[in-house]
Amino acid sequence: MLLANFAVMAFEKVTREENYSEWYNNLVYKADLAEHSAVKGCMVIKPHGYAIWEKMQKQLDHMFKETGHSNAYFPLFVPKSLFEKEEKNAEGFAKECAVVTHYRLKADPNKPGSLMADPDSKLTEELVVRPTSEAIIWNTYKNWIQSYRDLPILINQWANVVRWEMRTRLFLRTAEFLWQEGHTAHATKEEALIETKQMLEVYAEFAETFMAIPVIKGVKTENERFAGADETYCIEGMMQDGKALQMGTSHFLGQNFAKAFDVKFQSKEGKLDYVWATSWGVSTRLMGALIMVHSDDEGLVVPPKLAPIQVVFVPIYKSDEERDAVLGKMDEMAADLKKAGLLVKVDARDTHKPGYKFAEWEQKGVPVRLALGPRDLASGNIELARRDTKTKEVVSMEGLADRLVALMDEIQQSLYDKALKYQKEKTYTVNNWEEFLDVIETKQGFAYAHWDGTGETEEKIKEATKATIRCIPLDSVLEEGVCVFSGKPSTQRVLFAKAY
Amino acid sequence: MLLANFAVMAFEKVTREENYSEWYNNLVYKADLAEHSAVKGCMVIKPHGYAIWEKMQKQLDHMFKETGHSNAYFPLFVPKSLFEKEEKNAEGFAKECAVVTHYRLKADPNKPGSLMADPDSKLTEELVVRPTSEAIIWNTYKNWIQSYRDLPILINQWANVVRWEMRTRLFLRTAEFLWQEGHTAHATKEEALIETKQMLEVYAEFAETFMAIPVIKGVKTENERFAGADETYCIEGMMQDGKALQMGTSHFLGQNFAKAFDVKFQSKEGKLDYVWATSWGVSTRLMGALIMVHSDDEGLVVPPKLAPIQVVFVPIYKSDEERDAVLGKMDEMAADLKKAGLLVKVDARDTHKPGYKFAEWEQKGVPVRLALGPRDLASGNIELARRDTKTKEVVSMEGLADRLVALMDEIQQSLYDKALKYQKEKTYTVNNWEEFLDVIETKQGFAYAHWDGTGETEEKIKEATKATIRCIPLDSVLEEGVCVFSGKPSTQRVLFAKAY
Repeated sequence: MLLANFAVMAFEKVTREENYSEWYNNLVYKADLAEHSAVKGCMVIKPHGYAIWEKMQKQLDHMFKETGHSNAYFPLFVPKSLFEKEEKNAEGFAKECAVVTHYRLKADPNKPGSLMADPDSKLTEELVVRPTSEAIIWNTYKNWIQSYRDLPILINQWANVVRWEMRTRLFLRTAEFLWQEGHTAHATKEEALIETKQMLEVYAEFAETFMAIPVIKGVKTENERFAGADETYCIEGMMQDGKALQMGTSHFLGQNFAKAFDVKFQSKEGKLDYVWATSWGVSTRLMGALIMVHSDDEGLVVPPKLAPIQVVFVPIYKSDEERDAVLGKMDEMAADLKKAGLLVKVDARDTHKPGYKFAEWEQKGVPVRLALGPRDLASGNIELARRDTKTKEVVSMEGLADRLVALMDEIQQSLYDKALKYQKEKTYTVNNWEEFLDVIETKQGFAYAHWDGTGETEEKIKEATKATIRCIPLDSVLEEGVCVFSGKPSTQRVLFAKAY
Repeated sequence: MLLANFAVMAFEKVTREENYSEWYNNLVYKADLAEHSAVKGCMVIKPHGYAIWEKMQKQLDHMFKETGHSNAYFPLFVPKSLFEKEEKNAEGFAKECAVVTHYRLKADPNKPGSLMADPDSKLTEELVVRPTSEAIIWNTYKNWIQSYRDLPILINQWANVVRWEMRTRLFLRTAEFLWQEGHTAHATKEEALIETKQMLEVYAEFAETFMAIPVIKGVKTENERFAGADETYCIEGMMQDGKALQMGTSHFLGQNFAKAFDVKFQSKEGKLDYVWATSWGVSTRLMGALIMVHSDDEGLVVPPKLAPIQVVFVPIYKSDEERDAVLGKMDEMAADLKKAGLLVKVDARDTHKPGYKFAEWEQKGVPVRLALGPRDLASGNIELARRDTKTKEVVSMEGLADRLVALMDEIQQSLYDKALKYQKEKTYTVNNWEEFLDVIETKQGFAYAHWDGTGETEEKIKEATKATIRCIPLDSVLEEGVCVFSGKPSTQRVLFAKAY
């Protein structure tokens, strides 16, 4: 009943400033993106949320294929004995694994109408629900790779994964989430490293060009590395509360999985060697970033390139005659806009008033709203409301398609520029502990600071401030300095922030 | 090691006539479609197989959206107490459910290097890995539906499901499979029935127009109905061994799930009533149908509309100069064909000889192969080989794109015609038990026969012959007759066949 009430209650409007976290939770519900399910930690992604995710998928999938990758599908379950093989990886994920132990239910003799796991169906070996698929995939690649001729293998998988999380938040941290995971196999270290960096660039381009989110590209410290990787590259975005969100990772796995699963190949020269590996992924977590970077106190703001609906028409009328006339014109205009490649919806529902519709589409983040009433039919003008700037203007119906096509680009760019400006304003270069604390705790932003390179210092800073090293930025220049915490020598600045 | 050997071994060529089942298994491996995994009953769908599935998905998704449906995503897990709620459904699937009982692994104190399910992480309530999602979805819809204004809900989900099968076969019957499941909610019985039938039509159109497989539309008998449905509609295809394969089902669920989950709505007239439901699905099983209907002893045959590659170019050359000249021309021609909308691959690998490439693309079912050598450059001709008919001809390079575009339609139609002819030839009207046995056991085909309408007779016929009632065809006419088994009166013929 709690859920039922939550879903239909009128939300108290909470602004970002008042309570960023509550604002986020409310927005996810109000914009009909997702909700909690009856399964602890698992979410239901609602049609509007899923439609945005589908647009992300489609674009990413296109970019993966353009860079030579194919999709495939590997099993949901990983036998425990395989899962254990790459020790660091197993250790890293063991604490959050859902475990299948039985394969049948039967009537519970002690509870009429109830079922129980049938003790006779106990598996001789437990199955882990994949938290990530390196183990099952490398156990498969073993059979696919004999010679350099079989390399590279460039495969991606769109799948669900499960990592049992105690504290969950819709999109940001859920027990089950949707993602893609690329898994590639190469003959040389160099080629694997090129692949790792290439996919980081793909993610960065996707974030900036399609999500309109500027990102910082970098490499993780050892403490923050993917369990089983030699290097983890990442893109980090800044949310409106100044916190960082890791938006995508690309791992150089070295020969770790090849060694764990005994995957060797014969080189052109006839030498046997272990195969080099990468893996890379982004998940429905990106939805959290999209929401947190662009949205405002009125609801969701979606960049046009990812909007399932780019332009919504709302008719204004009183009589049936007016309705027919207005909707007739709207359908005609909508057809024109569709021809120009725009994603258009005419909201013809007669169960809801225009005011309700305005609020709904505003909450759902449709980039442009067009309202048309009987008077407009005579004047040849129409009211155009822009979601991102909340500006309204009356424009001519003539040339509307061209105007809107251009406006989509303008909005996309404007959202990116705004996010970049914000990111730059909240990013500071700090030179001592006082300045560091001021940025992390008072200004709440990103801090470029010298660090002595030890995991120990990193850990202490985290304990003291909750800030972590988000990455060692790729464009960071070498310069002599002293660690803001330990005072020991440092050769370059790293990026600190509190993070999701 | 068994798998490793299997994957690389040279397959003994087995024809359909010699051993249909072995022919199928070999083909799935040889055409690089899928393979068994380390997880009992679960398959790996390989890139070539997945690419065909992706084309199916894309087309079906388009058809679902054209009929007003949206995609969403619901949790992988179903708490046992929810799963139990619709009794028939629970009973129907209980025997094949994977059950999650723990959410953490820990180091096994008795086996160094090994992990074990942590007893402290035992769930208070077991989670069932979804075998189908009615329970979790109707538990969610409960919160979405208050009034007729909230209806209809027209949602589809692309997902993986798990049904623990003891005897598995790649694509046809696997413990985990990929599918789509539509779940709709309606205010009236009539509307729900219209939806059920509409989706059956969508499936039939997809099967016939895209898969080039003629299907028989019908309704299941009570024995064969989906657990929890009032009616199950289906499409049935005929494989080359005369067996039937159920290719898709559309269920009218009545108010069963609404009652189990207490989902009521207020009608326009202010009355409270339970909601009406449908669900419908097709799965990776369709890959099995595609393979079994069209392929031949040389390998896979894919209808052009579902082929990830429609035209493959194989260059013939000896010297580097010849290679450059031939590939140069091929790239130019390939660009032309792509412009015409064809899916083209130039097989420029210099690690493999033309003969190897011919055999590989034949096995993989590419509809048209074009081979070009140095002499062709002078003549302006090119060799065109058609996969389905195994015919070869020399054609002019001029007008090739137009010719190929037309040829794709021709091949698509020809595959359908051939399958339809075969289906008609192997379908018989039988009037007594002798004729029935002759069709089912000797001729190995479909039998239209009178049946007395009882589950008892149906069961006895199944025991005697392994043939089941595939469906009561929608176009079956009412006519008086006597049951071929019991001699009791019957009002219409039903379709019997052995089935996958």
